[in-house]
Amino acid sequence: MSNPTAAILVIGDEILSGRTRDSNMHFLAGRLTAIGIDLREARVVADRPADIIEAVNALRARYDHVFTSGGIGPTHDDITADCIAAAFDDHIAVRADAYGLLKAHYDARGQDFNESRQRMARIPDSATLIENPVSTAPGFTIGNVHVMAGVPSVFEAMVASVLPTLTGGAPLLSQTWRINRGEGDIAGPLTQLAADFPDLSIGSYPFIQNGAHGSNIVIRGTDGGRVDAAMVRLAGLFPA
Amino acid sequence: MSNPTAAILVIGDEILSGRTRDSNMHFLAGRLTAIGIDLREARVVADRPADIIEAVNALRARYDHVFTSGGIGPTHDDITADCIAAAFDDHIAVRADAYGLLKAHYDARGQDFNESRQRMARIPDSATLIENPVSTAPGFTIGNVHVMAGVPSVFEAMVASVLPTLTGGAPLLSQTWRINRGEGDIAGPLTQLAADFPDLSIGSYPFIQNGAHGSNIVIRGTDGGRVDAAMVRLAGLFPA
Repeated sequence: MSNPTAAILVIGDEILSGRTRDSNMHFLAGRLTAIGIDLREARVVADRPADIIEAVNALRARYDHVFTSGGIGPTHDDITADCIAAAFDDHIAVRADAYGLLKAHYDARGQDFNESRQRMARIPDSATLIENPVSTAPGFTIGNVHVMAGVPSVFEAMVASVLPTLTGGAPLLSQTWRINRGEGDIAGPLTQLAADFPDLSIGSYPFIQNGAHGSNIVIRGTDGGRVDAAMVRLAGLFPA
Repeated sequence: MSNPTAAILVIGDEILSGRTRDSNMHFLAGRLTAIGIDLREARVVADRPADIIEAVNALRARYDHVFTSGGIGPTHDDITADCIAAAFDDHIAVRADAYGLLKAHYDARGQDFNESRQRMARIPDSATLIENPVSTAPGFTIGNVHVMAGVPSVFEAMVASVLPTLTGGAPLLSQTWRINRGEGDIAGPLTQLAADFPDLSIGSYPFIQNGAHGSNIVIRGTDGGRVDAAMVRLAGLFPA
């Protein structure tokens, strides 16, 4: 398996303070899996320039794609675009293409296109815009970094704009078998199964439901026939 | 503000594939905020030894505390304990104290204390155990790293065991003011407010509800009087 790899960087104090529960990571994970891009890492950092810049640089060096979420609005705490420009050592200013989109949007609504809103047209020189069909203010792609909004409906729309432009790999197929026994009872045969199917990923995800232990066994791979064969073996070991 | 700092490292393919939505990060964030420990970063990595070891070493060097979640069960994909030992260059084997706890637990239930379950007694030499009142298999603390289970009910019980042993700081107080206007309309006065209260963190968290833009303004700080003063000013700027 040599699918492209990716990371997501969620930027925002509100996740780390426990005020807000992030949903963008989970959304993106599902979408990437479906198109054969392997999400390898997720990070959440606070609204601190040094932390953002360091994380972006670490992740873009390591993975084929980096997706960021949050911090590109009009308020004083929206510092992502400037941090991304700093990470790439690129110049950033209000750019004509983004300015034009935003001005047309606010003019059409009779809303003041004030200085704060103009901040959303700050785009690094070498970036290309990501379309935002929800609220116009664009995201952008620079190098292998895709910079998107944090509001889930906008993030999701931007993901829909970006993903068709990327080259995916073999979609990861996945099947799940639920076993109503504790992991300790099934671990031995499972180890053998994993050894017999080294080309597959076989994960055991335990749960406790109404006080009883159980586990979901998830078999993943890009070859449907192999996933099926492992599932048949697993079902034989632990009949429903 | 010189509160202790922390990071959480969530270990598990299932989060990154989009199969499972993590809840431990959000739970821990709320608990740490309440006791004045500043959660600065969260990471999710897959079940890959090199990735786990590197993340643990990066985070423990940078923050006062690191909390890990996941990968300490009895199955073949539970590799966290061994990776943590490797990160600390510590020896790891089945340890008598953990073995005794687990043996008593399974003996009392007439369940086989087999080789897989004995794996859960693998604890690095220099670690101390973290009590698990839900299912006995202990977590452990080594250096400034607290290694806990991924199943949310067990993770939460382990957090309850660990937090009272840590020295917190000044709890972060937080007040929220909801404004039913787009961020672009409020950004200017908000910037001025943030400049006038440099000791506070003032965040703007936009939302779109039924097609209308609004924002929650969250003011955070450790001095209740200052938070109140900023809230009074904010409420005057944007009356409800």
